Amino acid sequence: MSDPSEAQIYPIEHLREFTERVFRSAGVPEADARQAADVLLASDLRGIDSHGLARLQGYYELLAAGRINPKPRIRVVRELPGTATVDGDNGLGLVVGPAANAIAMEKADVVGSGWVGVGNTNHFGIAGYYPLQALARGMIGWAMTNASKLVAPVWSAERMLGTNPIAIAFPGKTEPPIVIDMATSAVAYGKIEIAMRHQKPIPEGWAVDASGAPTTDPTAMVGGGSLLPLGGDRERGGHKGYALSAMVDILCGALTGANWGPFAPPFALRQHVPERSVGRGIGHFFGALRIDGFLDPDEFGSQIDDWIRTFRASRPVPGTPGLVIPGDPEREAEAARRASGIPLVPAVVNDLRAVARQSGVPFD
Amino acid sequence: MSDPSEAQIYPIEHLREFTERVFRSAGVPEADARQAADVLLASDLRGIDSHGLARLQGYYELLAAGRINPKPRIRVVRELPGTATVDGDNGLGLVVGPAANAIAMEKADVVGSGWVGVGNTNHFGIAGYYPLQALARGMIGWAMTNASKLVAPVWSAERMLGTNPIAIAFPGKTEPPIVIDMATSAVAYGKIEIAMRHQKPIPEGWAVDASGAPTTDPTAMVGGGSLLPLGGDRERGGHKGYALSAMVDILCGALTGANWGPFAPPFALRQHVPERSVGRGIGHFFGALRIDGFLDPDEFGSQIDDWIRTFRASRPVPGTPGLVIPGDPEREAEAARRASGIPLVPAVVNDLRAVARQSGVPFD
Repeated sequence: MSDPSEAQIYPIEHLREFTERVFRSAGVPEADARQAADVLLASDLRGIDSHGLARLQGYYELLAAGRINPKPRIRVVRELPGTATVDGDNGLGLVVGPAANAIAMEKADVVGSGWVGVGNTNHFGIAGYYPLQALARGMIGWAMTNASKLVAPVWSAERMLGTNPIAIAFPGKTEPPIVIDMATSAVAYGKIEIAMRHQKPIPEGWAVDASGAPTTDPTAMVGGGSLLPLGGDRERGGHKGYALSAMVDILCGALTGANWGPFAPPFALRQHVPERSVGRGIGHFFGALRIDGFLDPDEFGSQIDDWIRTFRASRPVPGTPGLVIPGDPEREAEAARRASGIPLVPAVVNDLRAVARQSGVPFD
Repeated sequence: MSDPSEAQIYPIEHLREFTERVFRSAGVPEADARQAADVLLASDLRGIDSHGLARLQGYYELLAAGRINPKPRIRVVRELPGTATVDGDNGLGLVVGPAANAIAMEKADVVGSGWVGVGNTNHFGIAGYYPLQALARGMIGWAMTNASKLVAPVWSAERMLGTNPIAIAFPGKTEPPIVIDMATSAVAYGKIEIAMRHQKPIPEGWAVDASGAPTTDPTAMVGGGSLLPLGGDRERGGHKGYALSAMVDILCGALTGANWGPFAPPFALRQHVPERSVGRGIGHFFGALRIDGFLDPDEFGSQIDDWIRTFRASRPVPGTPGLVIPGDPEREAEAARRASGIPLVPAVVNDLRAVARQSGVPFD
């Protein structure tokens, strides 16, 4: 969130080992610690700095405070051949998510499609991690999660929904995959924080103040205002972003026995916990589709290659780099960071040093 | 699309019978004509005037010109227990869509979830019709379709994608269902046409001109410009609307053997047909989920009731009617129109009279 020019570069394996050891120090079993670190590192590798090591302290503190169960008994509580609900036993979403996603893929292996809802879980990292797991098995994967409230639906003056992301990926044959990973809010909360730190106004269409009136003042959003859903106000389609966010919230929350809407518990230890609880933890929803349940996978790969090339050849708007295929920026970040390491801004380095002190795991 | 105050009210059954007879006059078998009329009337009943009888002439002319097959042999060309691809044999989407959606529900009946892609089909009416069919069977239903190009992805100056809608519905227990039915464009094309007719500017964020520059001039969009995806420009999240539209396009087109992206054939007889074809017709994608594959359906209904009441109780933005539950406006329109009939504006009445002359079926 700070100025990227101030970042220091760290070797990936150093950060991975540190992260694993931090989780293990909090009582997380070895394989689970490795899995959790893999999800966090994937975020930093892919350039999504807000969801990777920047959050390690949050996870660690919730574990240390007993608010997240380090040794969950993850179990299927209801199922049919093509569906399941998983109870995450209040484990790390970084562990529960991959386990539930694997169940969705196993079901797809057997019947062609698998859909798995998860309740009683916690934040699962980047949504895009999960369809990448499906890609590795030659499947189309979907992932969604609900999250604590930040977004005011159109014509509501209250935070009622999280930034509730949707991710899905499609494999090409010779082209790289199309990887969609998007919040259903107009903008990420992190962008409001950056504007506030730099004392700059935010664009109209991102946020409302505590009364629900449009604002370009980031402090008015942070101090009791809300983000707007994708689309912004009613005139520009904000009701659609709200509907998408509601869809994610219902599939992840109401359908799984998790909390939904304004009752989703917060990620950070110091954030306000809603008075009312309507379920357990937050919720996720995973889907997996076998491509050969629809089309010859080789033919699908060729179609995706053609789709990508057709779209890349689209005439650019003058003065812009032209159309971007979803997943391109993250893949480019990953190539650069795999080669040279992961840049961490001073604020994140300070957090990691604090985690090092708290956990007794040396950072540097 | 004209001024609603000029509308004349017609009895539902009169319009239904006329529509059925028009389809039959074009060679559509009786049961299919009834099905097709039901989809169109559902649109008019629900207040979505752009997708109902306003399009009857379009369907009729394509049938009469031999561009749509009135007697399709709809068949499953590939399947697994939880998936299928259906070839619509170039039939009416209003007939192929319901048949394929029924297959998705039958698969969900057996294994819990069913996902059916459809290629070689045509426009299927309102996307919201299909999850309503699933609701009637106590399931959660999804529907998507791709469509002919109107939308320029962020930083592209060309129409590359359709308005590619997504629909999904969730049943309440005592509350009415939540029904989401939304295009992935910032706005419907019809709103641009209305602004053009009234010589009024359109809001910033709806459209770009032929060079890809933002425009508030509706004629600049219609004459070679494009709609923007949900979110509008890059700063306000237009890349997310583009990604959603791409997701719909790939599931409906690339995965089913249909045309995708800029190659999706147009709906109207007089519109330009793309030179290149990458598949057959357009494509749809249907999903059905058995609620008891996830949660006790009674408990889910209670959760949805609670969700709806919680959201309705949200503090309204002053000067607005407050938060709207998705599906409310359409349900209210349906109640009013079931009671008093369907208002048709003069332009639509003129079209229907033209269809009456073309088909020999009397209108009034």
